Amino acid sequence: MKELEEYIQKGEVIAPDIVKVDHFLNHQINIKLLKKIGEAFKERFHDVSIDKIVTMETSGIAVAAIVSLYFDDVPVVYIKKEKSAITSKNMLEEKVHSFTKNKDYIACLDGRYIQKGERILLIDDFLANGAALKGMISLVEKAGGTCVGAGIVIEKAFMNGRKPFEEKGYRIEALARIESVEEGIVKFKKG
Amino acid sequence: MKELEEYIQKGEVIAPDIVKVDHFLNHQINIKLLKKIGEAFKERFHDVSIDKIVTMETSGIAVAAIVSLYFDDVPVVYIKKEKSAITSKNMLEEKVHSFTKNKDYIACLDGRYIQKGERILLIDDFLANGAALKGMISLVEKAGGTCVGAGIVIEKAFMNGRKPFEEKGYRIEALARIESVEEGIVKFKKG
Repeated sequence: MKELEEYIQKGEVIAPDIVKVDHFLNHQINIKLLKKIGEAFKERFHDVSIDKIVTMETSGIAVAAIVSLYFDDVPVVYIKKEKSAITSKNMLEEKVHSFTKNKDYIACLDGRYIQKGERILLIDDFLANGAALKGMISLVEKAGGTCVGAGIVIEKAFMNGRKPFEEKGYRIEALARIESVEEGIVKFKKG
Repeated sequence: MKELEEYIQKGEVIAPDIVKVDHFLNHQINIKLLKKIGEAFKERFHDVSIDKIVTMETSGIAVAAIVSLYFDDVPVVYIKKEKSAITSKNMLEEKVHSFTKNKDYIACLDGRYIQKGERILLIDDFLANGAALKGMISLVEKAGGTCVGAGIVIEKAFMNGRKPFEEKGYRIEALARIESVEEGIVKFKKG
């Protein structure tokens, strides 16, 4: 997605593995661009019928909400990264290691919000080493849902995080695939 | 907003001051309902022109993203509740006391995302004692923006949090105003 790539290239590159997208995705949100992202995911997943979208807080939420508009306004469930003070007996948990923050967190999903057999489209802003995606899939499947695909806005393709998922048969579609980041220049994979 | 009130009444009431809205707003998100919420805010603020929407992570984000659709897709900026590991010299900060979690957090806004003189509509899921709203207004004004109004999904009207803001001339519109919560029954104020 050309326009998305241009926005990414305008961001600060802090280190090869940290590309800042605060100007349009993770602090300020460009809603017009998110609508184009929603259209693009609809095109990629036009052959798939889904019941719900699942994402991870925080930065996946706005993307998932706008993407839902292109899939008949299906409900969005966002996985929480913090245990609620009010525990629920339905709460499913999964430990996830955050690559960016270099620490573990507990991803939580109230099992009541995924019904057995529901077809789930996963949406997230980044795919790096795949730890967050692994946690999301695990929680959705524990709740009885089926992951019909994962729509990723920005993939750090150089980290090869998608490989183990594709080997297991999961379908991943990424709109911008970063091939390399060298001396502040972000390069993308074609296609 | 009748439909919104009905959703709130279906939620668990943990204590008089804690009404759970995880089933449609804060964990699972009902996008169809959010669109009606967006329409309702547009109706309330039809006379106002805005440049941006500002909200607070996490639960304000989906609301703000959908509300933007009814205001010409203006950009949304969400205030963060955690300092980024990568500090920015443009970061504005404000200490806020969370009533629900009974602890302080540092609300952060990158001043580059609010331009001097921009007209800001604040959006949040809850108004309780007003601490979060106070922090939002303070950050927006520090950045040079003008708060033209605050759109609140659910107001705990019995806490009277809106009073100091109205006394200072801020305009607040809430779609559901909880008058009381007694023995698990939520009652709403008219109008």
